[in-house]
Amino acid sequence: MNDWPRRIAIVGVGLLGASVAKSVRATIKDLHVTGVVRDPGKRESLLLNHVIDSGTDSIETASRDADVVVVATPVNHIADFSLRASAASPADCLITDVGSTKQGIVDAVAKDHDAIQKFVAAHPIAGSEKTGADYACADLFRGKMTVLTPHPQTSVEQLKRAERFWQLTGSRTVTMTPAEHDDHLAAVSHVPHLASSAVANLVAADSANLVGSGWLDITRVAAGDPGMWLAICQENRQAIRRQLAQLAGSIDDLQQMLKDSDDVGLLRWLQQAKSIRDQAR
Amino acid sequence: MNDWPRRIAIVGVGLLGASVAKSVRATIKDLHVTGVVRDPGKRESLLLNHVIDSGTDSIETASRDADVVVVATPVNHIADFSLRASAASPADCLITDVGSTKQGIVDAVAKDHDAIQKFVAAHPIAGSEKTGADYACADLFRGKMTVLTPHPQTSVEQLKRAERFWQLTGSRTVTMTPAEHDDHLAAVSHVPHLASSAVANLVAADSANLVGSGWLDITRVAAGDPGMWLAICQENRQAIRRQLAQLAGSIDDLQQMLKDSDDVGLLRWLQQAKSIRDQAR
Repeated sequence: MNDWPRRIAIVGVGLLGASVAKSVRATIKDLHVTGVVRDPGKRESLLLNHVIDSGTDSIETASRDADVVVVATPVNHIADFSLRASAASPADCLITDVGSTKQGIVDAVAKDHDAIQKFVAAHPIAGSEKTGADYACADLFRGKMTVLTPHPQTSVEQLKRAERFWQLTGSRTVTMTPAEHDDHLAAVSHVPHLASSAVANLVAADSANLVGSGWLDITRVAAGDPGMWLAICQENRQAIRRQLAQLAGSIDDLQQMLKDSDDVGLLRWLQQAKSIRDQAR
Repeated sequence: MNDWPRRIAIVGVGLLGASVAKSVRATIKDLHVTGVVRDPGKRESLLLNHVIDSGTDSIETASRDADVVVVATPVNHIADFSLRASAASPADCLITDVGSTKQGIVDAVAKDHDAIQKFVAAHPIAGSEKTGADYACADLFRGKMTVLTPHPQTSVEQLKRAERFWQLTGSRTVTMTPAEHDDHLAAVSHVPHLASSAVANLVAADSANLVGSGWLDITRVAAGDPGMWLAICQENRQAIRRQLAQLAGSIDDLQQMLKDSDDVGLLRWLQQAKSIRDQAR
């Protein structure tokens, strides 16, 4: 199985797409990577830096002889680009993605019977507030978790291929339903991101020099690309609203404990948060 | 002025107290540091590691010939310990602290006319979720801001001494009223900390392995000492409740924008947060 894949296509060569290329290339000798990149200058630079071996602006051209197509664009384009890759690619092609929301994408691709045979949705839980291929690296996924969210029609064989592919990047894989994924991600990523932005918005712009390392940690992700996060909010609106309601409830509880001078309750609440944080990693 | 201070006393030699000792010692030759430490074993270890030159469990003994007394205990003990240090120390002694709340401490010390002549409240905005002298370092305050919150009765001379002392640690100084400080800190530190804990509490303990670097950043401070944060909440209850109400309002706005699919508003809100974060440091 060391001869698979030979040719991969990356649609959208940003931080994640370029890191997939670099990490798989580190494992598979003679891998050919085609990048689908709209901007000719960017395409040229990716070729010069050996991130990709060939470049095109056509998804169809890139998919024609690909063993694997990785769609690494903003979430609002993933389903459409996956359908186009499916129509153009060989029958045994694996199509996968990196989107941080899954239900909408899987539902949209599943409307095409052929496409859902090829497509196994994936979300590598790795990244950075940085964007762009310049920050890509071969070990971005190392030791991280990639969540696979197969459709009921996905074959066991195709799921196994998706697991193998994502393990080639250095990540571990776990499988859950798209809905389970979206609820979990709303709780661990999307709503935390919104909370980070809300914390940043508490500060007047002119006192941003009077902040400590805690504030800088909490608000780091708020420097992320607003357009990308808007797209995530659009894609995962329902789960985000449910988790935001949880967060609002938690803040109400806090206000009540502060009002009542309920020190026992407040201490327990702080201890619970510490205990959860201490268990991570 | 390079011969001042010769002798300093640190009441409570944890992360901040030990870092004050180390940073001032790096600048002042032949500095004598006395540590007020209750636990004899800890005292012994601080002596062996040359963090302190002498140790005692008595604030009065340590203050008797001190040029500067730094009270670096949890906030709920600072006023009481500062009053005791004032009663025992020479007339020209500077008493200062590191507490992250100021109004309650300054008001309590100001009840003693002699003590408020000596005491200049300070808050070095530096720290870590780590606690204890083992993590102390001479450059913890380097380039950071120390907020001084003098009382109306503080003399210009004593304020200048406090500025000089805190600049010896490597920090810059800024002056504001205790109330301004507490409102600002509620916005940039206390409520962000509570938001960080609330974000941690969104996650079931058994899925804490399925989190990304963003979650780890946002929740880093939630691993801090719950007892210390309870004390901060008690000391700065009113300002924290005001800023928590702001945060709750921001989350309400978010919910409304998500419900209404108000993408323009949501994008503007995310962009504002990014712009504030990008201006910090």
